[in-house]
Amino acid sequence: MKFKKLEKVNLLFVSSSEVIAMKAVILAAGLGTRMKEKLPKALIKVAGTEIIFRMIKLLSNHVDEFIIVVGKSGDKIDNFLKNKGFRYKLVWNFYPERGNGYSFYLAKKFVENDERFILVMGDHVYEEEFVKKAIQGFGLIVDRNPLYVDLDEATKVKCENGRVIDIGKNLKDFDFVDTGFFILSKEIFKFAEEIVKEKDVVELKDIVRRAKIPVTEVSGYFWMDIDTKEDVKKAKRFLIRNSVKSVGDGIVARNLNRKISVRISELLVDFVTPNQMTLLSFLSGMISSVILFFNIPLAALFYQFSSIIDGCDGEIARASLKKSKVGEYMDSILDRFVDFLFLVTLAYVSDFDRFIWLALAFAIFGSVMVSYSTEKFKAAFFEDIYKKIPKMRFLIGKRDERIFVTMIFCLLNLVRELIVLLAFWANLRVALTLLIVLKTKRNGLD
Amino acid sequence: MKFKKLEKVNLLFVSSSEVIAMKAVILAAGLGTRMKEKLPKALIKVAGTEIIFRMIKLLSNHVDEFIIVVGKSGDKIDNFLKNKGFRYKLVWNFYPERGNGYSFYLAKKFVENDERFILVMGDHVYEEEFVKKAIQGFGLIVDRNPLYVDLDEATKVKCENGRVIDIGKNLKDFDFVDTGFFILSKEIFKFAEEIVKEKDVVELKDIVRRAKIPVTEVSGYFWMDIDTKEDVKKAKRFLIRNSVKSVGDGIVARNLNRKISVRISELLVDFVTPNQMTLLSFLSGMISSVILFFNIPLAALFYQFSSIIDGCDGEIARASLKKSKVGEYMDSILDRFVDFLFLVTLAYVSDFDRFIWLALAFAIFGSVMVSYSTEKFKAAFFEDIYKKIPKMRFLIGKRDERIFVTMIFCLLNLVRELIVLLAFWANLRVALTLLIVLKTKRNGLD
Repeated sequence: MKFKKLEKVNLLFVSSSEVIAMKAVILAAGLGTRMKEKLPKALIKVAGTEIIFRMIKLLSNHVDEFIIVVGKSGDKIDNFLKNKGFRYKLVWNFYPERGNGYSFYLAKKFVENDERFILVMGDHVYEEEFVKKAIQGFGLIVDRNPLYVDLDEATKVKCENGRVIDIGKNLKDFDFVDTGFFILSKEIFKFAEEIVKEKDVVELKDIVRRAKIPVTEVSGYFWMDIDTKEDVKKAKRFLIRNSVKSVGDGIVARNLNRKISVRISELLVDFVTPNQMTLLSFLSGMISSVILFFNIPLAALFYQFSSIIDGCDGEIARASLKKSKVGEYMDSILDRFVDFLFLVTLAYVSDFDRFIWLALAFAIFGSVMVSYSTEKFKAAFFEDIYKKIPKMRFLIGKRDERIFVTMIFCLLNLVRELIVLLAFWANLRVALTLLIVLKTKRNGLD
Repeated sequence: MKFKKLEKVNLLFVSSSEVIAMKAVILAAGLGTRMKEKLPKALIKVAGTEIIFRMIKLLSNHVDEFIIVVGKSGDKIDNFLKNKGFRYKLVWNFYPERGNGYSFYLAKKFVENDERFILVMGDHVYEEEFVKKAIQGFGLIVDRNPLYVDLDEATKVKCENGRVIDIGKNLKDFDFVDTGFFILSKEIFKFAEEIVKEKDVVELKDIVRRAKIPVTEVSGYFWMDIDTKEDVKKAKRFLIRNSVKSVGDGIVARNLNRKISVRISELLVDFVTPNQMTLLSFLSGMISSVILFFNIPLAALFYQFSSIIDGCDGEIARASLKKSKVGEYMDSILDRFVDFLFLVTLAYVSDFDRFIWLALAFAIFGSVMVSYSTEKFKAAFFEDIYKKIPKMRFLIGKRDERIFVTMIFCLLNLVRELIVLLAFWANLRVALTLLIVLKTKRNGLD
């Protein structure tokens, strides 16, 4: 007897800190001058998505309103954010030269009644996991050993008893690096107000130093502040490589396809949407079938190429935070069609006898069933078969592997042998999948 | 921006009454004497599952311990319940002739510290929806107009101000019928104790009458107390018919297959498990392919027969509360194989030319893809495509419809035409599915 509902409730109580919606202040008054762009830094695209929009998407599960402090080009940010479907208020800083501490001070009246709120910089890029951790901390979120940040340029933090005692770029003796991510309470404005009255140029670090705010360590995740075009490239590279979800990848995908597809994704992420990429890989798969009428080895090479770029839509979608279930759905249906069309065209142009047509039928059936047997698992158990039954990962016969073998056999002019092999291989894999699922049942699967 | 987690929490707070685990007292001291069985009534099978086990399964989401009051044959109940995987305590009533009120009184020490607990009769059968409603009520759960109960035999209830003022079989003037399901608090035992001291034979209705317990109306659902073999049949018939989940059924399934399959399920539910039924329908599908070598029309009829009994495993599983995801998984994979084998064998025995082999390849591909496109939807969206996009239900080309058309064409000796038709039909349906999903995306699907 299980008490599922009860467990669910407990789980939610335990992690209730996660579910309280806060406001978030984003400081976006800076211009991307070092990048020779006329855009506000917040609107610069990193891996296909504007820095500020990435931030908003990552925070959207935790934040019910964004307070965005903008400078001279605030109207550009306003135009960009309009109709994106979330609540925000713009705060205009007409004196951006007075520093980011002054920008922050201007947000006061929008959050001063809040128990806690988020403060982030409009020129920082974080990976999703970082945000998930940071959101549960308090004070300044710091990193002990940032992996992706140039230490010379970074703002260092010296701490005592869990609070900041000094902060600055040129600290020789420091414990952490400032990640630009804060969880604050309204008390901070007392210190901000003091300093604003004392001097014209107020940096955030002045306020942090005087308030001796507490720190929370979140180390080992990707985050960067974007200052130069080099930074944009570096961040893009990380985000694309981090977007490879390897759980359903076969041997060929891991060792060959992904190595090439991430490079293509890196080149294209700023210019194409994931859906356009899906279409492109679908078209290249169709073209490979057309080439079969003229030259089988060439068609096979092209087919393998389409298998490589088939990885790009997912990489681009995840790196640019543009994942869509409909996109995933389309991609998987179109992949099945590409595989079918290649096999059936191969048979058609090869003038087979009845035995091979029969084998072809089995190959086609098995090829779809490899996917059907994994997707049906997910539909029934609401869980990925490769996660639920890890040994399934070692069962060869995934799409990338079959396409690679198809290419080899076509290059060797062994089309008959290929069809017979696929007929056995794919169906054997499906049969083994069934056996493994049944065996797992005996070990506790419902 | 959505605040999914927040919504979830609110939802759980609203329905929190559902999630509190209670104890449940089951009165199972009676023998099935009117049925000429030597078994305790609680162990009589109704639609493949013992009455008491059905009750325990239905309550298991809400109950953390079962207190089962048993009579002379309590050891049989104990043997049956052992190792079934839930917590229970047996309470022995050595004087069952003292009445079910006395049985109930014996459970006192196990629940007298509980704020509220469930009391049910070990010879009652309820549908799942009834239990879901009843669990949220308080006092005696009553039905204003029971649909499945013989009024002459039923226990009637007269109420005033929401409380029982009289209860009995022979009441002329009554408001409700007693469903045998109670949510009680410990105060009830005060009245029970009084009556037990006063007389030897104590019926539950004596206690109910004296305690003037409140009533909660839950009307219009299926429930029955099982007294005779006729009752067992009646309950079985309802449970099987209620187990038809029609959401993915095509025209042929609704109007022909289900009408026959429920009758077969009714005959077999007490003798076969859902998995055995899956195997049986798989075997009959395979046999239809074998028959193709001898007689195509006969094979087609047999194929349609296998399509009919393909509905039985699900019906039996749901009616007997033995649903299993692995079972559903196996069934759907084996169905794909049966369809494939029939088509490919049909082609093989028909000595086709290359054009028809080509059409066959499309027919096979399309046939699997109809299922793939619906299952992949569920895998991606974690929701049934027919529920999420109701107009999908009108898209013909589901398995039952294809098999029926296959039978007709084979009987008319139009095998070539059949293959070409299926090649177009199935693939057209997949294309339309894609278009409908894309269109729904524009209307808000993620």
